[in-house]
Amino acid sequence: MNNPLSMLVSDLSPQLQAWRRDFHRYAESGWFEFRTATLVAEELDRLGYRLQLGREVINADARMGLPSAEALQQQEQRAREQGALEKWLPHFSGGFAGIVATLDTGRPGPVIAYRVDMDALDLNEKLQPDHLPFREGFASCNSGMMHACGHDGHTTIGLGLARVFKSLEAQLSGTIKLIFQPAEEGTRGAKSMVEAGVVDDVDFFTAVHIGTGVPAGELVCGSDSFMATSKLDVTYRGVASHAGAKPEDGRNALLAAAQATVGLYAIPRHSEGSSRINVGVLQGGTGRNVIADRAFMKVETRGATNAINEFVYQQALNVIEGAAKMHGVEYDIALMGAAQSSKPTQPWVDYIHRQAQEIAELTSVVDRREQAAGSEDATYMMERVKSHGGQASYVIFGTELSAGHHNEKFDFNEQVMAVAVKTLASLALNLPTFGSKA
Amino acid sequence: MNNPLSMLVSDLSPQLQAWRRDFHRYAESGWFEFRTATLVAEELDRLGYRLQLGREVINADARMGLPSAEALQQQEQRAREQGALEKWLPHFSGGFAGIVATLDTGRPGPVIAYRVDMDALDLNEKLQPDHLPFREGFASCNSGMMHACGHDGHTTIGLGLARVFKSLEAQLSGTIKLIFQPAEEGTRGAKSMVEAGVVDDVDFFTAVHIGTGVPAGELVCGSDSFMATSKLDVTYRGVASHAGAKPEDGRNALLAAAQATVGLYAIPRHSEGSSRINVGVLQGGTGRNVIADRAFMKVETRGATNAINEFVYQQALNVIEGAAKMHGVEYDIALMGAAQSSKPTQPWVDYIHRQAQEIAELTSVVDRREQAAGSEDATYMMERVKSHGGQASYVIFGTELSAGHHNEKFDFNEQVMAVAVKTLASLALNLPTFGSKA
Amino acid sequence: MNNPLSMLVSDLSPQLQAWRRDFHRYAESGWFEFRTATLVAEELDRLGYRLQLGREVINADARMGLPSAEALQQQEQRAREQGALEKWLPHFSGGFAGIVATLDTGRPGPVIAYRVDMDALDLNEKLQPDHLPFREGFASCNSGMMHACGHDGHTTIGLGLARVFKSLEAQLSGTIKLIFQPAEEGTRGAKSMVEAGVVDDVDFFTAVHIGTGVPAGELVCGSDSFMATSKLDVTYRGVASHAGAKPEDGRNALLAAAQATVGLYAIPRHSEGSSRINVGVLQGGTGRNVIADRAFMKVETRGATNAINEFVYQQALNVIEGAAKMHGVEYDIALMGAAQSSKPTQPWVDYIHRQAQEIAELTSVVDRREQAAGSEDATYMMERVKSHGGQASYVIFGTELSAGHHNEKFDFNEQVMAVAVKTLASLALNLPTFGSKA
Amino acid sequence: MNNPLSMLVSDLSPQLQAWRRDFHRYAESGWFEFRTATLVAEELDRLGYRLQLGREVINADARMGLPSAEALQQQEQRAREQGALEKWLPHFSGGFAGIVATLDTGRPGPVIAYRVDMDALDLNEKLQPDHLPFREGFASCNSGMMHACGHDGHTTIGLGLARVFKSLEAQLSGTIKLIFQPAEEGTRGAKSMVEAGVVDDVDFFTAVHIGTGVPAGELVCGSDSFMATSKLDVTYRGVASHAGAKPEDGRNALLAAAQATVGLYAIPRHSEGSSRINVGVLQGGTGRNVIADRAFMKVETRGATNAINEFVYQQALNVIEGAAKMHGVEYDIALMGAAQSSKPTQPWVDYIHRQAQEIAELTSVVDRREQAAGSEDATYMMERVKSHGGQASYVIFGTELSAGHHNEKFDFNEQVMAVAVKTLASLALNLPTFGSKA
Repeated sequence: MNNPLSMLVSDLSPQLQAWRRDFHRYAESGWFEFRTATLVAEELDRLGYRLQLGREVINADARMGLPSAEALQQQEQRAREQGALEKWLPHFSGGFAGIVATLDTGRPGPVIAYRVDMDALDLNEKLQPDHLPFREGFASCNSGMMHACGHDGHTTIGLGLARVFKSLEAQLSGTIKLIFQPAEEGTRGAKSMVEAGVVDDVDFFTAVHIGTGVPAGELVCGSDSFMATSKLDVTYRGVASHAGAKPEDGRNALLAAAQATVGLYAIPRHSEGSSRINVGVLQGGTGRNVIADRAFMKVETRGATNAINEFVYQQALNVIEGAAKMHGVEYDIALMGAAQSSKPTQPWVDYIHRQAQEIAELTSVVDRREQAAGSEDATYMMERVKSHGGQASYVIFGTELSAGHHNEKFDFNEQVMAVAVKTLASLALNLPTFGSKA
Repeated sequence: MNNPLSMLVSDLSPQLQAWRRDFHRYAESGWFEFRTATLVAEELDRLGYRLQLGREVINADARMGLPSAEALQQQEQRAREQGALEKWLPHFSGGFAGIVATLDTGRPGPVIAYRVDMDALDLNEKLQPDHLPFREGFASCNSGMMHACGHDGHTTIGLGLARVFKSLEAQLSGTIKLIFQPAEEGTRGAKSMVEAGVVDDVDFFTAVHIGTGVPAGELVCGSDSFMATSKLDVTYRGVASHAGAKPEDGRNALLAAAQATVGLYAIPRHSEGSSRINVGVLQGGTGRNVIADRAFMKVETRGATNAINEFVYQQALNVIEGAAKMHGVEYDIALMGAAQSSKPTQPWVDYIHRQAQEIAELTSVVDRREQAAGSEDATYMMERVKSHGGQASYVIFGTELSAGHHNEKFDFNEQVMAVAVKTLASLALNLPTFGSKA
Repeated sequence: MNNPLSMLVSDLSPQLQAWRRDFHRYAESGWFEFRTATLVAEELDRLGYRLQLGREVINADARMGLPSAEALQQQEQRAREQGALEKWLPHFSGGFAGIVATLDTGRPGPVIAYRVDMDALDLNEKLQPDHLPFREGFASCNSGMMHACGHDGHTTIGLGLARVFKSLEAQLSGTIKLIFQPAEEGTRGAKSMVEAGVVDDVDFFTAVHIGTGVPAGELVCGSDSFMATSKLDVTYRGVASHAGAKPEDGRNALLAAAQATVGLYAIPRHSEGSSRINVGVLQGGTGRNVIADRAFMKVETRGATNAINEFVYQQALNVIEGAAKMHGVEYDIALMGAAQSSKPTQPWVDYIHRQAQEIAELTSVVDRREQAAGSEDATYMMERVKSHGGQASYVIFGTELSAGHHNEKFDFNEQVMAVAVKTLASLALNLPTFGSKA
Repeated sequence: MNNPLSMLVSDLSPQLQAWRRDFHRYAESGWFEFRTATLVAEELDRLGYRLQLGREVINADARMGLPSAEALQQQEQRAREQGALEKWLPHFSGGFAGIVATLDTGRPGPVIAYRVDMDALDLNEKLQPDHLPFREGFASCNSGMMHACGHDGHTTIGLGLARVFKSLEAQLSGTIKLIFQPAEEGTRGAKSMVEAGVVDDVDFFTAVHIGTGVPAGELVCGSDSFMATSKLDVTYRGVASHAGAKPEDGRNALLAAAQATVGLYAIPRHSEGSSRINVGVLQGGTGRNVIADRAFMKVETRGATNAINEFVYQQALNVIEGAAKMHGVEYDIALMGAAQSSKPTQPWVDYIHRQAQEIAELTSVVDRREQAAGSEDATYMMERVKSHGGQASYVIFGTELSAGHHNEKFDFNEQVMAVAVKTLASLALNLPTFGSKA
C-alpha cells in the first residue's frame, strides 16, 4: 500500500465528514442540486482544476424528467437562501447542475475518469433521536428531499479524490477527470452528460456507489447486473361528460388508462432474460359523476439487456396507443428517464481487483454479485466509453447501513468514504501497471 | 266479413298444412333455401303470377353473412336430392333464393306488397315423441337445420295469399306483390332485396310474423320495437410461437380478442335509449403451449334507434382496432348482418286495425306492444317504402307455441296460418276504403 | 289569486334577497352547514315554530359520505368565526345540521310538509366582474365551497314560507312542517332524516328545486325522472414491493383497480330501463418503481328504477370483490350516498297544477318533463310518504341561469324565490280543496 | 469400448428399425398406447423379464389429462383391430398402458433404471413423397396421431436395451429396470408411475431423449434446463340469455374468461428466474345473440424452479377464481399435466460423460446446454430418486432431423437408436466403476 496516500486520506477524514454532513443537511433532489454544485465548483476551482460547468457538460435536450420551470426557479431561490454561491449559480440555473473537473498533468498518458452523483431523493427524512443524522443535527432541512441513497457520500468522495490527486499530482501522468452528475435518481441525468461529450475522450472510466447491501469491508469491482430501463409518463386526454345524463358524449381517459394498465402487465415475458413492467402510479378523473377526461400514469420498463428492455418498451408503446384508440382518447408520452444495461470490461475489473487487494480496509474483494441491482444511468457513460474502446466499470463499496436505501432512516458508516477515496485514487496512481499481471 | 274469402280460406286449410309440413321437413337455413324456393316458384308460376327470381331481386353485393361457396354448392346438391325442381334451381344457385311474384290486375290502383321469409335456423330439431313434428313425421330431416321460428308458416301464408288473390282477382285493383325473402335469421337478406329495388314501387307494405309471445287470437297491427343492429365477425391474426421457449416472438391474437371483449362490453350506455353489445362467440388458439395466432369473435351491436346503434357500432370498431394495436396483431371485420329500427306508419296501422276487427278469429287487436322484440331486417323494406311516402307496417299473429322461438322443440298451432291469410288478404280486398274512418 | 298572500310575499322580497345573499356568501358544503343552520333555527324559533334539531331529526348511522371528524371540527370552528350562533351550534355539532320546524294550527287537518336543502358544492366560485355575486359582493368567501346549485335559494324559500304561514296562521288548519336538510349533494343526507322519522306523519309532501334547465315562468309540478343511485368509495389495499427487484412480493392494488374498472363498465345493460355505471376517479400507487399497495376509486351506479340500480349495484360489488381476489389484495367499500327513483302521486300533481294556474307569474305549468334529471335524495322522503298512503311530489320552478348548475359562474334570477314562496304557500292555504275537481 | 456390445448392437440394428417403423405406423397418443404396450410386453415377456403391468405401475388417481372413457374404449377397439395382443390388453385397458420390466441378475448390486416413453402427438402426419415415413410406407395410419417427437425411437431403444441386457446378463450384477411410460406429451403420465412406487428402489436413474436440436454425434449427459410446469383446463359456467331481450339475466362465462385471460398474462414476473404463463386456447359461447353460458381455456404455467412455477400457479388460481366472482359464474379447474424442474446429480453426469467418451459414434460429449428445453415429466422420477439419495440424469442423443419436433414432417436418423442402446447399456455394464476417476 501506498503510504503517502494512506496518510493523506487519513488526514482528510474530518473534512470528508464535514462535507458529507453539509450536503446531507441541504439535500437537493434531481435537477435541483444548485447549492451542492456551487460548493463543489468552488472547492475544485480553489484546487486549480479546470472546470466545465452547466450547459458545457449537459445537453439541454437530452435531459429527462425535468421539473417545471416554476419548480426550478423556486428551488434555485431556496438554494440561494441556503448559501449557494452567487459566483457559480448562473451556470447551473434552470436544471444544469453538472460539473466536470479536469486535471491535466502535462505528462503523456491516458484519460482516467470518475463519476459521482449529487442528487437526493423525494422523501422526508425521519426526525427521531434514534436516527443519527437527526441526533447529530445534520438531518435534511429541506422538506421532501433527503439523501437516502448515499449520493452525499459520493459527492464527498469526488471532492476527496480532487484533494488527493492535487496533492499527489507529481506522481500522476495523463489526465484525470472528475464528473459530478445531477439527477441520477430516476436515471435522468447521465444521458445528457454523455450527449454533451464528457466521456468521449475517456480511456478508463469508473462509477462509484456505496452500500446497496454489500457487506462492510467488501468491494465489488465490476457490478454487472443493472437492468436497462425506460421511465414513461403517460397522459390520456378524453372528453368529460356527465356520467348520468350524457355518458355517450364522454371519451373516457380513465377507462383507457385502466385497459392500458392490464395490457402493459400482460406484455410477454422474454426468453433471453429478465424483463419488468410497472405502472407505479395511475391518477384519473375529477368527480364521481363525471366521465374522466384525463388520466396520468407513471410507467417503467426494464430488461436484463438493452434489447430486452427495448422489446418491452416497444410493446408498451403499442399498448398505450392501442388503449387510446379503443376509447377514442388522445395521449402523450414523455420519456422521464432511461438507463442501459452494461457489462464492465474484464481487464479493468481485474485491475481494480488487484489494486483493491492492497487496501487494508477491504477484507473482501469480489468481481461481481448475483443479485440484480436495479437500474443506473452511469451505464450510458460505460457504454459510450466502451464504444470507443475504453475500459469501464462500476464499483460498489460495502458499508453498514442503518436502514435500506430509499428508506427514511437510511444512513451509512462514514468511514467508507475514506476507503473509497484511497482505493479509487490508487487506480490512477498505479495506472501504468494496467495490463501487467498481478 | 267477406264471406267468399272465409270460405276460400277454409277450403285452403288442408293445403296450408301440407305446404307447411313439407317446408318444415326439408328445413333450409339462410341462403340455402334452394328446394323451398323452387317449390314456391313452381306454385306461383302455375297460378299465373309474373315472377322475378334470384339475381333480379337480390343484389349480390348487398348480401350479408353469406356461407362459403363450398357450403352453398353442397346444399344445392342436397336440395336437388330432396326434390328441388331443376327448372328453377339455376335462378337461385349460389345464394340467390329470393322471389317476387306480381299480380297486375290491369285496373288502376296502388301497389300493395307482403313480405314473408323462408329460412330455417341452424339448430337440430328435437326428435322425441312429445314433439308433434316428430310424432307426426315431419320433423326436419336436415341435420343442423330446423324451422324453429315459424318461417315455414310464413312461406305457407305467402302461398295461401297467392291462391286467394288469384281466386278473387276480379275484386282487386292495382297491383299485388308477394315477396319471398331468404336469410332473415341474422338479418342478412332483406337489404339485398331492397338494394335490388323490389319495394321501390310499393305504396302499402306489410311484413308478417307469427308467434313471438303474442297470445293466440291476438293481432299486433304495428310492431314498432325492433332494435337497429349490426352483426360483425372479427378475426385477429397474430404470430404463433412456443409459449415456453419464445414467448417474445408471438403476437397474441387470443389476448387481443380478450382485451377487445372487455373493451366492447365497456362501451358507454346512451342516454337517448337502449343499446346492446354482445360477444356471443370467441374462439382462439390451437394448443396450450402455443401463443395463439388466431382468434375469432361473433359480435353484435343494437340500438333503440339507428343513431344509437351507429354509436355503439362505431365505438366497437374503435375497440376492435385498438385491441389489435395493443398486441401487434392484424384484424378483419366482416359485416354479417344488419337491421334498422323502423316505426310503422300510423294510418296503415289504423287501417289494419279496422280490417282485423272484422275477422272473427281475432279476439284481440292491438296497435303495438311494450316488449322489445329483437331485430328484424324487414325494417330495411319499411324504411325504403316510407322514404318515398308509402305506408308500412309489421304485423304479428298470436298463436300457441309448444316452446319458445329458437328452441329445439318449437312448434305452433297451424290454424294461425288461415287466420293470417284471411286477415292479410282483406287488406288488399278492402284497400279502396283506406283513408276513410271506420 | 289570494291577494293577501301576494302582498305578503311582495313585502317579503327584500328579505328573501338578503337571506339568500348571506347564505351564498357563507356557502357551506354538505354536513358543514353549521352557520346556515344556526341562522335558520334562530329565525324559526323567533317566529314561534316548534323546533326539532340535530340528532332529533338525523339518524347518525344513516348519514352517508360524512367527512372526517377533523374536517367537521375545523368547519365548525370556521362557522363560529363567521357568525354561527353559539346558542344553536351544539345541536348541529359533528355533522347534524338538520332542522324540522312545526306549526300546529290547533285545528284538525292533515300534515303538509315542505323540504328544502341547505348545502353548497365543493367548488371555487368564479371571482370575476361579469359574475353578479362577485360584482355585488356576495360571492363565497369560503374556498372550495360555492352555492352553484341554488340551495341558498331553497333555504331562503323555506324561511319565506315560515314567515308567510305564521302571518296567515289563522287561515290554516292541520299541521305545517318545514324540513331543512343537509348534504343533498352526493345524495347523502335525506336518508338519515327519513330514518329519524321526520316524514312518518306527513300526508302531503313537496320537495322544491329551482332552475335545472326549466324555463323562467314555468313550473314542473311532478318531476318524475330521477334515477336511483348508489355512490361507492372503493379502496384496494395490497403490498408494496420494488417493481424491479422483487415484483413477486407485491400485491398490486392498482392493477386490481384497473381490472375492476373495466369489469365495472362491462356490467350488463338492463332490458327494463336505463342504467349507468361510472368510475369517476381512480388514484393508485406512490412511485414509478413500486408495486402499488393502495388504489382508490369513486364509483357510482344508477338505474331508472330502484330494481335496476340494485341490479347494477350488486353486480358492481361482485366485480369489486372479484378483482381483489384476482390480484390477492384486500378491499373496503364505503357507501357515500344513495337515492331512489320515485314517481310523484298523480292526485297531488294535479292539485299543484291547479293551484299553480292561479299564480300570475307562472306562464307555463306542466306535469312532468321528458329529460332525465340525475338523482335526488328527496326521493327517500317521497317513497316513505307514499309507503303510508301519503301524497308526494317534486316541483321545479324555472328561472334564468347565468351558467349551468355545478358551474363556477352559476347564478339565478332571485325573483324566482318569491314565486316559489307564493305557489308553495297556496298549496297549504287551499288544501281543503284537494280532491275536488278544478 | 466393449466389443461384444458393439457387435451385439450392430446385429440388432435391422430389428431396431423394424420395431420403430411399426410403432411409427401405428402411432398412439397419450393414454391410448394399447397396441404399442402389448407388443412391448410380449417381447419383454419372451426375453424372460419379470413384468409389472398397468395398475401395478400406474396409480389411477395420479393420472392427469386422461381422455374420456368413451375415447379410451374407442381407441382400445382401434388398437385391437390393428393387432394389439389380447393376451396383454386387459392389463392396459382404461388408460393404464405402462410397463416395468425387471431383470434381477441374482448378483448383489444396485438398481439401475432407464425410462422411455411411448406416446405419439395429436397431429396429422404429412403424407407427401418428400417425407420419408410416407415414402417408405410407415407413415401413421391413425388420423390425428403421429410420432413427431421421437418416442417411437425411445420405445425401440428400450426394447434394444432389453435384448442387450439379456444377452450380456452374465456380465451384469444387481438389478436392471426398464420403465415404459405412457402419456409424456402434456407431462401427464410420469407422476402416476412415481406414485405407484416404480422408482422407489432405484439407485441410478436415466431418462432418454433423442433430437431436440442437439447436433448429430453429440450427447448431452445431464440436461438440466427443464422448467416446472402446470397444465390447467378451466371451464366457466354461467347462464345463457338473449343478449338483446334480457342481457341482465345472463351470467357471462365468455366475459369471465376474457377478464381471466388478461389477468393471467398480468401475473407478476419473478425476480429469481424465468416464469411463463399462457392461455393457449379459449373457446366460449354458442351464438352471436346469446350471452355465453360456457367458456373453456387451456392454460399453462411454467417456472425455472418448482417454487417459481408454484408462485405462478397459485396466482393463476386466484385470477381464475376472481374472474368467476367478478361475473357471477361458476368454474372448474382440471389439472391436465404437470412437471418439475430437476437438476441431474453431478456424479452421475460425470460417470455418463466418461462412458460416452468410449463410444466411437459420439463425437461430442457435453454436460449440459444453455438453451431452455421446455418441460418433461421424467423430472418427477428424477426428484423421487434423488429424494432417497439416488443418482439421476436426463440424457439427449443428438441426431439429424427432417423437421422440428411437433412438426408434421418430423423424422430422425434411425442410426441414433443403436448409438443410444450402446451408450446406455454401457452405463449398466460398467457400473462397478462408478465413483472411480476416469
